[in-house]
Amino acid sequence: MSESWIVGINPVEGALSNDAERVRELLVENGQRNPRVQELAERAKALKIPVHHRPREQLEKLAGAARHQGVAALYEAPPMASEHDLPRLLEQAGGEALVLVLDGVTDPHNLGACLRSAAAANVTAVIVPKDRAVGLTPVVRRASAGGADRVPLLAVTNLARTLRELKDAGVWITGLAGDTTQSVYTLDLKGPVALVLGSEGEGMRRLTRETCDFVAKIPMPGSMESLNVSVAAGVVLFEALRQRSAQR
Amino acid sequence: MSESWIVGINPVEGALSNDAERVRELLVENGQRNPRVQELAERAKALKIPVHHRPREQLEKLAGAARHQGVAALYEAPPMASEHDLPRLLEQAGGEALVLVLDGVTDPHNLGACLRSAAAANVTAVIVPKDRAVGLTPVVRRASAGGADRVPLLAVTNLARTLRELKDAGVWITGLAGDTTQSVYTLDLKGPVALVLGSEGEGMRRLTRETCDFVAKIPMPGSMESLNVSVAAGVVLFEALRQRSAQR
Repeated sequence: MSESWIVGINPVEGALSNDAERVRELLVENGQRNPRVQELAERAKALKIPVHHRPREQLEKLAGAARHQGVAALYEAPPMASEHDLPRLLEQAGGEALVLVLDGVTDPHNLGACLRSAAAANVTAVIVPKDRAVGLTPVVRRASAGGADRVPLLAVTNLARTLRELKDAGVWITGLAGDTTQSVYTLDLKGPVALVLGSEGEGMRRLTRETCDFVAKIPMPGSMESLNVSVAAGVVLFEALRQRSAQR
Repeated sequence: MSESWIVGINPVEGALSNDAERVRELLVENGQRNPRVQELAERAKALKIPVHHRPREQLEKLAGAARHQGVAALYEAPPMASEHDLPRLLEQAGGEALVLVLDGVTDPHNLGACLRSAAAANVTAVIVPKDRAVGLTPVVRRASAGGADRVPLLAVTNLARTLRELKDAGVWITGLAGDTTQSVYTLDLKGPVALVLGSEGEGMRRLTRETCDFVAKIPMPGSMESLNVSVAAGVVLFEALRQRSAQR
């Protein structure tokens, strides 16, 4: 079990609405008069969740760079999934597995936006390497708009090995890179597929890239070398969904 | 003419490579030993751009929330375009105009990522309402990875009027929203089109929405209400490009 702070009105409201039994405690800033914050405190009390008033500095400290808006909730996250959960998740997905692999996305805004897109796309799993993972910090959670808790997030010890396990399970591995001629739009993304994105600066690691069945790019007519990694992830995830729904 | 600070190694390198004649001055942090920063200082000197050494605090102050990495460049941005430039830009684009309209995107990371995608998609113009615009701050510039200076960005006085002008010029206006049944994938985005996105929290303003020819959504199978605005902008921009290149 890992406890973490969820900060800000919308994130806290999301936790109380979707997952109240995992909220351990609510902190409200001393003298906070925002009616939405007061309403959250009332809801927490009605749910028998302890509500404490604390000085602004304390909320700022636990929020880090995230905006707390005078309210924070101590949230007991479900245990993070691991490589051991992968076979079960793939079996549930049947022939429609859609996996997002992030090989070194360390910016918390980008990771949060990726988790939000992954939850919206109803992916089978998001896989990150344990040693390069940024963790579910308050900034990540906030940027994910609740997505962080609605998508199976697997931190794996050895990414190349996990990719080989995916292959063995019949999942095609497609990596995204700029320095290739193949376009993602000419790939068939309808079957079981894992989409792999590397870090903003350096892309996929060599071993990750070598494990891919395909390496493709998002064709870009303009004079940029790449997209923001969360935008690129969104473009390929929703291209996969478009192809799948066109097939039906 | 407006001067602004570009901070960080990659952004400064981009400015020196693409637009050196607009760089007025380089600041390097006292005692900075990063070889890439030193290389930038050498390049600036070779280009006859003054290089000054300054204490870390000064760089931090002008960088605001952006990461300066010990280097900053004073950049004289080209005059920001306005509604008066629109007819010329549309004429240049011929029947292939692709306009991105951001009605209230105020988060600088999101605005930067939108400008980066817009530059990558080679859009005709990005249009923002003057009174809700966030401006090209160092954080926006940095998040745009150079895109901010490679795309015509128009700040307009009256967005609804500008949208009507686009219509009169034969551009179809498509707004993105969650509360509609029409899918963006069933729209024809090959002709001259403007894609309109609202603010993260509130979406398009009423008047903006009423001016749209179509209001469509990105279909989402998962349990999220919306995507990050820069991800949504990327998904529709690249869907338009996909349709256009499939046509050829």
